Amino acid sequence: MNHDPIAAAVQRRLDHKTKPLGALGRIEALAAQLGSILGTDAPRLDAPQLVVFAADHGIAAQGVSAYPAEVTQQMVANMLAGGAAVSVLARQHGLALTVVDCGVAADMAPQAGLVIAKQRAGSADASVEPAMSRGECAAAIDAGRGVLKALPGNVLLLGEMGIANTSAAAMLMVRLTGLPLAQCAGRGTGLDHAGLAHKQAVLQRALELHARAVEPLDALAALGGLEIATMTGALLQAADEGRVVVVDGFITTAAVALAASLQPRTLAHCIFAHASAENGHARWLGQLGVVPLLDLGLRLGEGSGAALAWPLLKSAELLLAEMASFDSAGVSTAIG
Amino acid sequence: MNHDPIAAAVQRRLDHKTKPLGALGRIEALAAQLGSILGTDAPRLDAPQLVVFAADHGIAAQGVSAYPAEVTQQMVANMLAGGAAVSVLARQHGLALTVVDCGVAADMAPQAGLVIAKQRAGSADASVEPAMSRGECAAAIDAGRGVLKALPGNVLLLGEMGIANTSAAAMLMVRLTGLPLAQCAGRGTGLDHAGLAHKQAVLQRALELHARAVEPLDALAALGGLEIATMTGALLQAADEGRVVVVDGFITTAAVALAASLQPRTLAHCIFAHASAENGHARWLGQLGVVPLLDLGLRLGEGSGAALAWPLLKSAELLLAEMASFDSAGVSTAIG
Repeated sequence: MNHDPIAAAVQRRLDHKTKPLGALGRIEALAAQLGSILGTDAPRLDAPQLVVFAADHGIAAQGVSAYPAEVTQQMVANMLAGGAAVSVLARQHGLALTVVDCGVAADMAPQAGLVIAKQRAGSADASVEPAMSRGECAAAIDAGRGVLKALPGNVLLLGEMGIANTSAAAMLMVRLTGLPLAQCAGRGTGLDHAGLAHKQAVLQRALELHARAVEPLDALAALGGLEIATMTGALLQAADEGRVVVVDGFITTAAVALAASLQPRTLAHCIFAHASAENGHARWLGQLGVVPLLDLGLRLGEGSGAALAWPLLKSAELLLAEMASFDSAGVSTAIG
Repeated sequence: MNHDPIAAAVQRRLDHKTKPLGALGRIEALAAQLGSILGTDAPRLDAPQLVVFAADHGIAAQGVSAYPAEVTQQMVANMLAGGAAVSVLARQHGLALTVVDCGVAADMAPQAGLVIAKQRAGSADASVEPAMSRGECAAAIDAGRGVLKALPGNVLLLGEMGIANTSAAAMLMVRLTGLPLAQCAGRGTGLDHAGLAHKQAVLQRALELHARAVEPLDALAALGGLEIATMTGALLQAADEGRVVVVDGFITTAAVALAASLQPRTLAHCIFAHASAENGHARWLGQLGVVPLLDLGLRLGEGSGAALAWPLLKSAELLLAEMASFDSAGVSTAIG
């Protein structure tokens, strides 16, 4: 199954624990992956960082979201005040929560937990012009690397906030996977049937406008968004530093797919928290060849699914570290 | 979907939280179920108790398990010493762990965390005689009620330990569901193909011997086991007291199916933690009309799956209690 020697060493340790071989199922594979990422058969998760990358999208002006664009800045404030879902879950699990302003269309007051890493106050409307310039895109990626460098620990949990960012992610999915738009675009925060049809028409126009933006970085600049670009940089940096990355839903998967297209080994650092209810997400995970831990019909984003899956990673770490072996506990092994 | 007025009240509260309607998927349904069970639209989980019901099975002498029977008592000792998987997970999540000796075939020394509620030192071999008398079975159910009465809190997480107890559970599944044995019996702790064929032959013989034990309590007495009977009592008591019950894998599901056959409203108190890899478990959950939270290929028992799912219940509670509303956070609601 796993040919990595460290993963194999973790599996050998698990096979001496007081349980039937393989009886912890995916938790055993998870422990092996943690070992493989962290380069040790005794992986310990240190100071996990839940980072929410936030930005606005010019394409929101086309009515592609069920919510008005000002919700981006309102939700950033809510996250920092402790009232958002991700705030509650981060508190529950002792995850440090940082919100990164990657391009919110308002000046956010400096405060604890907020990092300003903004190239511009929201992307341009990708249905009429490139969402950002190639220079802005490169700067956002660099900023994402910088954000991660400044954070301690060896685990990054990805979150995002940005009204209309399922539009950007869906267009990137079309460009990166070659799948038709109908298999990539979904209802986002809750569009009805007519709303979804309108969104698809707008995205189709944008994709045609930027038909020549085929290379990953060209597509990212043309289609957006700023938070996806910044997250892509953070992912590349996380892989360079050997951190574990916990991927949330559809938008964070877009950043993973982009980062992996630039640096394929990024993917091996990623643990996929859940299959979202957003159309396209499970399909994209399948294309990436990965199986998520949870399937709970979530479609919130923010990093909420990553936070919900976090205790499973912690369990994998603790079971490997703390379970007794057959020898140490004086338990008989299987017969024959 | 849910016609319980308290569940509907919980859903209304969730619908005012700062998230798109329904965006927390199954976590919202879970919050509604917690409200419904605890009888309040502001449910709080109090002093959760992970209880491992342990017993030996005479049928183990027929070679139906991959492990020798003495592993039951060795694993009880390991759980109490803190080295079993369930010990690690209970520590991780702050769950009080109690092991109940319902019929281990050895005298367990009294110690903290161990409750002795033993009718006999292991059941008889159900392939040659009834696993227990009707009187012993009734006493075990009563003992299970007594165990629960003595425990604080409003949540019971079910665990079990007993070499050969997948045999007892599989026979009960045949009797309670009417499905053929091949759809109910599985590899347990890791039988190979020949081992499974032998197990099925032994169980087929036992089922034929006790063909007239059709009523649930008759089947339970004839087929075993003592831990399933004790757990059944604890489940009936939990329902009477209005506690939340978190169900683990195949054997705990047998106790739930039994308790529900005696008192149907027991089922509404149960949250199903996971679909186990044991043959028959997912099928039994389907027959009960329930959908588990996790699907991680677990097949360990002990309550390990219940413990792994626990943080999701806690998240449901905390999100309902602590998330801001659109009003309180000043976040705009959906357009139109």
